Amino acid sequence: MDLFTYLNLNELALGLSNLQMFPFFDSAHYIVSVMALREQPGALEVSRRSPLACWFSSMLYCFGGAVLSSMMMAEPPIAPLSNSTNVLLASFIWYLVFYCPQDLIYSSATILPLRLVLSGMKEVTRTWKVLGGVTQAQKKYKDGLLVMIAIGWAKGAGGGLISNFEQLVRGVWKPETNELLKMSYPTKVTLIGAVLFALQQSQYLPLQTHQLMLLYTVFIVLNKTRMMLLGSSSSPFAPVEAALYHALFARPAGYCLAPKHAETTSVKHQSALSRPISHSRGKDSLNGAAVAESDSPDHSIDPKEGSSSATNGKDQIKQKDQECSKKCD
Amino acid sequence: MDLFTYLNLNELALGLSNLQMFPFFDSAHYIVSVMALREQPGALEVSRRSPLACWFSSMLYCFGGAVLSSMMMAEPPIAPLSNSTNVLLASFIWYLVFYCPQDLIYSSATILPLRLVLSGMKEVTRTWKVLGGVTQAQKKYKDGLLVMIAIGWAKGAGGGLISNFEQLVRGVWKPETNELLKMSYPTKVTLIGAVLFALQQSQYLPLQTHQLMLLYTVFIVLNKTRMMLLGSSSSPFAPVEAALYHALFARPAGYCLAPKHAETTSVKHQSALSRPISHSRGKDSLNGAAVAESDSPDHSIDPKEGSSSATNGKDQIKQKDQECSKKCD
Amino acid sequence: MDLFTYLNLNELALGLSNLQMFPFFDSAHYIVSVMALREQPGALEVSRRSPLACWFSSMLYCFGGAVLSSMMMAEPPIAPLSNSTNVLLASFIWYLVFYCPQDLIYSSATILPLRLVLSGMKEVTRTWKVLGGVTQAQKKYKDGLLVMIAIGWAKGAGGGLISNFEQLVRGVWKPETNELLKMSYPTKVTLIGAVLFALQQSQYLPLQTHQLMLLYTVFIVLNKTRMMLLGSSSSPFAPVEAALYHALFARPAGYCLAPKHAETTSVKHQSALSRPISHSRGKDSLNGAAVAESDSPDHSIDPKEGSSSATNGKDQIKQKDQECSKKCD
Repeated sequence: MDLFTYLNLNELALGLSNLQMFPFFDSAHYIVSVMALREQPGALEVSRRSPLACWFSSMLYCFGGAVLSSMMMAEPPIAPLSNSTNVLLASFIWYLVFYCPQDLIYSSATILPLRLVLSGMKEVTRTWKVLGGVTQAQKKYKDGLLVMIAIGWAKGAGGGLISNFEQLVRGVWKPETNELLKMSYPTKVTLIGAVLFALQQSQYLPLQTHQLMLLYTVFIVLNKTRMMLLGSSSSPFAPVEAALYHALFARPAGYCLAPKHAETTSVKHQSALSRPISHSRGKDSLNGAAVAESDSPDHSIDPKEGSSSATNGKDQIKQKDQECSKKCD
Repeated sequence: MDLFTYLNLNELALGLSNLQMFPFFDSAHYIVSVMALREQPGALEVSRRSPLACWFSSMLYCFGGAVLSSMMMAEPPIAPLSNSTNVLLASFIWYLVFYCPQDLIYSSATILPLRLVLSGMKEVTRTWKVLGGVTQAQKKYKDGLLVMIAIGWAKGAGGGLISNFEQLVRGVWKPETNELLKMSYPTKVTLIGAVLFALQQSQYLPLQTHQLMLLYTVFIVLNKTRMMLLGSSSSPFAPVEAALYHALFARPAGYCLAPKHAETTSVKHQSALSRPISHSRGKDSLNGAAVAESDSPDHSIDPKEGSSSATNGKDQIKQKDQECSKKCD
Repeated sequence: MDLFTYLNLNELALGLSNLQMFPFFDSAHYIVSVMALREQPGALEVSRRSPLACWFSSMLYCFGGAVLSSMMMAEPPIAPLSNSTNVLLASFIWYLVFYCPQDLIYSSATILPLRLVLSGMKEVTRTWKVLGGVTQAQKKYKDGLLVMIAIGWAKGAGGGLISNFEQLVRGVWKPETNELLKMSYPTKVTLIGAVLFALQQSQYLPLQTHQLMLLYTVFIVLNKTRMMLLGSSSSPFAPVEAALYHALFARPAGYCLAPKHAETTSVKHQSALSRPISHSRGKDSLNGAAVAESDSPDHSIDPKEGSSSATNGKDQIKQKDQECSKKCD
């Protein structure tokens, strides 16, 4: 790419591509990952009840991508444990973040400038992981573009993709949500990276590996920094996503109901998801409906709603009906 | 087998065994599978919320057998993705079934004669998949009859066997049911096929491969057609199953309670399955019992019952008690 | 180790290390495992509803360690099925324990002296399994001490570690508990064994393999016998654990709440675990709260509590509040 030569960026890109992740960038990744775990609701309580479950959860946060991509490639998912140095480093950081006297480490690391630097460094490791996954897949499946994307994605965003099972280690089970149903920003940006690197490695992009590494790294670091500084969770891809969605997947309103055939054949399989609606149809099933709804998996629990839930059954049913009609829009 | 020679069926059988699955039979399999997904409750809603989760779910419906059997054999479960042509074909069909303008494709495919043909063609692919699984297992485990049966079954009925995890992709979690607890017809017929092909490959049956392929294919296609035309869900194996069950697994009534020792040691582990019964024992726990029961995982939700559920708590408890006593028979 | 020579124990140790597990010790392992399954709540009901699910569950009890360690090493998890003799033996025992006429086998095996002998013999197989796992891992990962411990542990205590998924086969799902969150005695003692054998195989211990086998076997058999005779579930490691916990993981009281930052960012992720507490805060949500609590996954169901649950909503809320405050201590 001539622009790189023109701007004398080639040397910078080459230098970046020779950067060693161990120990500094890896440490930053471990610190940010373990802190993310610690900030999960209930994680501190688990750290007191069972240090072992907490440690295992932390390792899944730190090495989840390697575990998931290994499983997808039928390589031993235990392999990350064989790299003793990295496991010991991650375990040491886990210990400091959770159990350090006076909570010194966690308190310091939450100071914004330090957290910014650490998060930036963690983002850098993402490039290496995605590229590692893509080349690992390419060795086994030449021309397997889809496999390369999948493995690159899994290696770069594994912690998020297996979050249901990571939570299970801590005794938390939230089946109603996962990273495929509602992708978080890191998962999205990793998917884009995996697509780009897979295209580049298959020589569909007019870029060399180190050039793409520079571009992608700069993009994800800048974007992460922007999001942290502005406290914004808005994704930079939102307009593109919305446009794609409307072009490809939008359908006219009123189309959301399954055709009659489907309804009649599948009544007995009626899922937990559709329970509240069927219950609230019967206006006289006051308490029954109210409670069943507060149990249904597809409503995230809102404490305010919970406290008001028994004040008036009829009110709540109206409210729920409104929710249901909103959903059908 | 002389009968085959006598009826001049050998050539037909050989012709059938040389049939190519790609593209027509594979396409029929993808169409029927994706339509089955679309008819799941909540699937259309997922297709609007997250096309990616919907796509991934569809791929599990189409390639679930290959994924499951690969995992059982420690081969890369990602391998089906490396067959780009088939994945693109399945993705194209997924798109048409879910997002086609005016819903043309789905509407046409639900017309009975077309659906009959597609379902028949899908059944044909089952023979190939079961046989593929059995021979794949035989390569690694000579004389491993049980492994051959397991892999043949997994490859032919994988989508059903992993349905709990496929549902999880869509945010649905129904732990109280799985294909082992309550086998559906396709799972049963695939198991029988896996047993037959494993016996045949181990030369315990006086049949050649192409002869068994013809017999099994004719049986499953005819039976599927019969079931669709009559709208009957009755399995042709029901009498055999009932006889086997009574011969092997029946026990005198009253024996269903665990011995005292077990009860006392395991009270604290009392499972979700046993909740409704324990609740309804207390006659005065009116609303509590009623609602707990409508939430209980081992009752499939019946909308009629749901609407009447709050009319009279006592009535419902009586009704439930009857259900419970029926269960104990 | 001179003590061994001094006490003439070397020959005993060598003799023990040459002991064949098949068929007697393996049979004892299968009997005790299947009996443990049968004593799970709901297992008998499953054995009547679906013998196949019951059989599969039994196999996971008997071969869970082999399945789990295979998956961790990317070896076929189906492999235990290829050992027909052992599978047939285990299946035969499964049949006798669950379906024997007059329930003869189960009734006899629950007689204390016989159960003592069987449990002791089962413990002996633990030594062999842990050592098998450690050496299996050592072949692939020389010097991978952590991998050796993990595989040894998985092979020796696999049935417990995968219990969440074994329960799922039976339609039971208890995400709020697992062996990492709250280790049972067998899981603990297996972990200790895995650490010891891994250290020994890496030559960090001044012992030979057969000597450690003797010591470990004697310890686990004696300890199991003691626990069964006294009916005590107190672990012999409790003091060591408590000391370690206080030295490494204890933190001052009042520190259990997450910092404000974490709380505000994670409200929307509020987990299922915290539901009951948030509900019971609203004093006026009488029935709603009561029933929601009886459904909540982190309370094991107590039938007595269930029958009293609807007598007085307010009482129950008080009771629950007390429980919650106890938990926060």
